[in-house]
Amino acid sequence: MGMDIDAAVFDVFGTLTDWRSGVTEALAAVGNRAGLQADWGAVSDAWRRRYRPALLRVVSGDLPWLPLDGLHRIALDEALAGHGAGLDALGEAERDELVRAWHRLPAWPDAPAGLERLHDSRVITATLSNGGVGLLARLTKHAGLRFDCLLSAELVKSYKPDPRVYLSAAELLDVEPRRLLMVACHPDDLAAAADAGLRTAYIPRPLEWGPDAAPVPTPTDVDLVAADVPDLARVLATNG
Amino acid sequence: MGMDIDAAVFDVFGTLTDWRSGVTEALAAVGNRAGLQADWGAVSDAWRRRYRPALLRVVSGDLPWLPLDGLHRIALDEALAGHGAGLDALGEAERDELVRAWHRLPAWPDAPAGLERLHDSRVITATLSNGGVGLLARLTKHAGLRFDCLLSAELVKSYKPDPRVYLSAAELLDVEPRRLLMVACHPDDLAAAADAGLRTAYIPRPLEWGPDAAPVPTPTDVDLVAADVPDLARVLATNG
Repeated sequence: MGMDIDAAVFDVFGTLTDWRSGVTEALAAVGNRAGLQADWGAVSDAWRRRYRPALLRVVSGDLPWLPLDGLHRIALDEALAGHGAGLDALGEAERDELVRAWHRLPAWPDAPAGLERLHDSRVITATLSNGGVGLLARLTKHAGLRFDCLLSAELVKSYKPDPRVYLSAAELLDVEPRRLLMVACHPDDLAAAADAGLRTAYIPRPLEWGPDAAPVPTPTDVDLVAADVPDLARVLATNG
Repeated sequence: MGMDIDAAVFDVFGTLTDWRSGVTEALAAVGNRAGLQADWGAVSDAWRRRYRPALLRVVSGDLPWLPLDGLHRIALDEALAGHGAGLDALGEAERDELVRAWHRLPAWPDAPAGLERLHDSRVITATLSNGGVGLLARLTKHAGLRFDCLLSAELVKSYKPDPRVYLSAAELLDVEPRRLLMVACHPDDLAAAADAGLRTAYIPRPLEWGPDAAPVPTPTDVDLVAADVPDLARVLATNG
């Protein structure tokens, strides 16, 4: 393909880490301790679904920027209030503990080895996440995800899909946008990166929303599709 | 000591990398190609000495912020003009190549293993350098220096010793300044970090300015002194 990629930046929640398993486990632990019973996977899904509208209110300027923990807390409060089953009984300390579950999610099994392989190549690797720098440092250390650099939407006080986030990665890494590859399992993230001039790679994560979720169609308007992170490393070594 | 350190941030030029050897080698290569002869180590020293006044003009607001490559170029032009021996003959392409020598310096021999050991501990490790994020990504990859995160004065568009640089590291890593350790071989960097509320660790680098340089007295107003990076990792594992 001859894409001439100098750096690859990765979405983290969903693309490299299994947020649903990590968050469901944390909800179950906190809930059981409080004597509550619920379909904790469904609570995770509701929490995650309420996160995006809150985030888009920041991107549109309707809400002032606040750290991801703050957005997660707003979405959690809404999800707990909306779920019934007495989940409103969870207190401040429990809610803070749940928000911190996003700092220590498990990696998808292929991700650590794939990132090591990319690290050993000439391509510079970085996160490009809505998680803050401190969260990313803890999460990548916990999950064994090796990067050359951590980049975050926090550095421009906004959130993806704001084009400033993608362009800040090109500027900070000192690479041209067309030589910067955005890697994600979310077509909307990749579409926004492409609009900003970046190249795009799609990695399917069919289990992101659990084993019973409807399949996501593979997007056709991306520069490449890889089966997983080691496959991406192989493709970039061959064609990058 | 019970310092309760959550994160350690490192100076890079001098503390972890041997800029003088790397820059002297680059000057010799470029100079020999141009048919020039000089004491290239002395030219390196002159270049480095002219860098700091240029940097302080940015911190004071006398010069607008510009990337480190730009500061290095100003200082290089001054050093070449001041040196005589026909060094003014070096052209644009050669000068740009010399500025890029700061992107691929050799590590001090102890640094890679010491940083790996720290990475395997609970302490978060990051750079805190006047080099930009892209420069640091290239340099740490080239030199085999493993960090959990790269932080740069570029992120607040200033330079050390501006207190905003040290405080930005605490804010981005989400740690209290008193639980953040600044590691450097330069007493002035550590003094500025301490003024901003950080803890400080001094590592001597007696060869920073070459084998004939006058010895630097060990500062007495730091929280700890370590012989090298593995020694720092050992001390933090025991007392941190």
